[in-house]
Amino acid sequence: MPPVITLTSDFGNQDVYAASMKGVILSINQHATVIDITHNIKSYNVEKAAFILSTVYHHFPSGTIHVVIIDPGVGSQRKAVILKTPSAIFIAPDNGVLSYIIDGLEPPSSQLQSATVAELNQKQVPANSKAISISNQKYWSHPVSTTFHGRDIFAPVAAHLSMGIPAEEFGEVLDSLYVFPVPHPYHDVEGNLNGIVLYIDHFGNLFTNISEHNLPQGKISITVGHHKISGLSTCYRQSEGLTAIISSNGYLEIALKEGNAAQLLCSRVGEHVKVSEHQ
Amino acid sequence: MPPVITLTSDFGNQDVYAASMKGVILSINQHATVIDITHNIKSYNVEKAAFILSTVYHHFPSGTIHVVIIDPGVGSQRKAVILKTPSAIFIAPDNGVLSYIIDGLEPPSSQLQSATVAELNQKQVPANSKAISISNQKYWSHPVSTTFHGRDIFAPVAAHLSMGIPAEEFGEVLDSLYVFPVPHPYHDVEGNLNGIVLYIDHFGNLFTNISEHNLPQGKISITVGHHKISGLSTCYRQSEGLTAIISSNGYLEIALKEGNAAQLLCSRVGEHVKVSEHQ
Amino acid sequence: MPPVITLTSDFGNQDVYAASMKGVILSINQHATVIDITHNIKSYNVEKAAFILSTVYHHFPSGTIHVVIIDPGVGSQRKAVILKTPSAIFIAPDNGVLSYIIDGLEPPSSQLQSATVAELNQKQVPANSKAISISNQKYWSHPVSTTFHGRDIFAPVAAHLSMGIPAEEFGEVLDSLYVFPVPHPYHDVEGNLNGIVLYIDHFGNLFTNISEHNLPQGKISITVGHHKISGLSTCYRQSEGLTAIISSNGYLEIALKEGNAAQLLCSRVGEHVKVSEHQ
Repeated sequence: MPPVITLTSDFGNQDVYAASMKGVILSINQHATVIDITHNIKSYNVEKAAFILSTVYHHFPSGTIHVVIIDPGVGSQRKAVILKTPSAIFIAPDNGVLSYIIDGLEPPSSQLQSATVAELNQKQVPANSKAISISNQKYWSHPVSTTFHGRDIFAPVAAHLSMGIPAEEFGEVLDSLYVFPVPHPYHDVEGNLNGIVLYIDHFGNLFTNISEHNLPQGKISITVGHHKISGLSTCYRQSEGLTAIISSNGYLEIALKEGNAAQLLCSRVGEHVKVSEHQ
Repeated sequence: MPPVITLTSDFGNQDVYAASMKGVILSINQHATVIDITHNIKSYNVEKAAFILSTVYHHFPSGTIHVVIIDPGVGSQRKAVILKTPSAIFIAPDNGVLSYIIDGLEPPSSQLQSATVAELNQKQVPANSKAISISNQKYWSHPVSTTFHGRDIFAPVAAHLSMGIPAEEFGEVLDSLYVFPVPHPYHDVEGNLNGIVLYIDHFGNLFTNISEHNLPQGKISITVGHHKISGLSTCYRQSEGLTAIISSNGYLEIALKEGNAAQLLCSRVGEHVKVSEHQ
Repeated sequence: MPPVITLTSDFGNQDVYAASMKGVILSINQHATVIDITHNIKSYNVEKAAFILSTVYHHFPSGTIHVVIIDPGVGSQRKAVILKTPSAIFIAPDNGVLSYIIDGLEPPSSQLQSATVAELNQKQVPANSKAISISNQKYWSHPVSTTFHGRDIFAPVAAHLSMGIPAEEFGEVLDSLYVFPVPHPYHDVEGNLNGIVLYIDHFGNLFTNISEHNLPQGKISITVGHHKISGLSTCYRQSEGLTAIISSNGYLEIALKEGNAAQLLCSRVGEHVKVSEHQ
């Protein structure tokens, strides 16, 4: 089976950064299939990349190698790491961009929780996974630039990994990685479920951190900004105006029928969303 | 031969929707080659996607599977369909996005004609083709979301089709599909040929619905807005200012030498274009 | 080994031009791997495409076929050419878009030098390379349009080349190609090194034409616009404000820590950059 390598970055679509990485990968393993997740993460937006990655990686074949290059600290002392989980391999700077992935590997009891995205913390690597610090220069492209480790370190490491070289060959095992606390929803004293908008897509749909499993069983109303939405729709077209719906990643989503909910609501990532049981 | 699957959508380039579909496809058939047509159709613009698709599909290998996801009605009662034509297979919502494809399969006598894009109509599937309603849930990814059938229905169906499963396996045969009337040019009482602008590309070139085969044999002049162009050029550089030329899809095109014709003319899709024989 | 074909163009991401070329290539050689370098070169910007190509091609496997379609003269008398160098094959219009490639193949003594990008000149093909005028219509897609040779000539020629057909089969050998003089840095009478900004990337980083090998050994200061930068940094994060650094292509780069240097400096391509030894 040809191995699959994905790329996620803030490179944009006008420069040759992504293409350079593909060239390096194909020079080492011409049988690799390289797929772009997106290169349009806003520059240096580690949190957005971290979220996006967590919504897409599990749709790829088991063992897919996901390379993430949102790397404002390139060339500094920040580590580059391989994280091998039961279903996928990630290659990224150790700057929090794997926070959602690591959070999702944890039993809820050991999740680092916070109402908003906050400071980086060292966190134990989950027992079902293994982290490696990429330090073995044998698998790098030399000379290594100080500004583009994506091309000179991450891409050749991904390509060599895709040829079956064990992760342990690339450096020493790490006990912990840097993560930011992932914002989880919480119940307030009145019993309402409180979450935030984590992501706004190209259509202006708002993705929250409130899972369908957290929602009350009865009738609900959803408050976002000054707007209140009654009940869940089962498709975008069902109701006029603002719609609450279960998104394709299983979380509460706010949308506007054939329109842009984010523009209508003037919403941003981080905006508060409240779910109340209907009286 | 590795099978080819193309994707056309209004997903844009910042989200992970296209990548999710590629992940699903490669999880089922890791030998598929997946090619993006474009993901930059304006949101919900079914007519534009329909036109674009008709200009590109015949350049792909015979049997290529073209998946189109412009789907404002996702999750509603609109059908999802497979259309198998003599040279290609299409997977799309039954919302008119295959209108130009179906129009092109027809003898002119049975084309639904209209001066402008109008309402959807049920239309008989051409005799050389077969349409299937995608209803057999065996080939879907479960659980099926209500907001992203591209990932949960269209992608896995495309991947299974690419492995040789017959189209009939995916659901029941349909006699008719929804199409909008494709705008064809017409002759007015003075003998002029009248058409419209169907598409404006990134360079600002205007693509009309007037085929080179419809043009009068003699000298012609072309009127668009308040501008009149005399004769056809044989390349963009031949004349200064506005140029009429036969486009790469065989239709009359209006261009501006190293400039943007649409901006100069303030033209939009739907604008009237008239071809007169030169006196 | 599956052959690699890359595409570089000013097609943008909304139209089907790049996809049409991929369809044509895969129709001829379904085992080709087609990689986009970028399609977001500004319309008709031959100089920018020429520079970009020179920074990326050597990261691809030896023998990769690079197709470049920045072609305002399509359909005119401009030639289409194959340039076969020791490490790669290029297919492009003969309009200067291979200038940096040809410059890089030359010993410095025979480089055409100029302080700014200027007129096209005929230049001898380097001895280690071979140029072919694409004239053998056997390998074209017929009918050939006058507006899209990328699809009808370049793509099928690339696909046939990737199947092992020798370059000489596609037309007659050329002794010279059109190039513009590549801007090289020079020393002024005071001993300062003077160069220009060749390229500004998506992050706003400025890439100059001053190679790290040209820099003085001692301490240096860099002047760009009204700003003066002391010394080189070894990574983006090392210093606050404007930073001079050796870029990933081995040339002097001006950057702003987690910011946009081009916006801060109001810089454009062509802006003067001066390197002085520190007193």
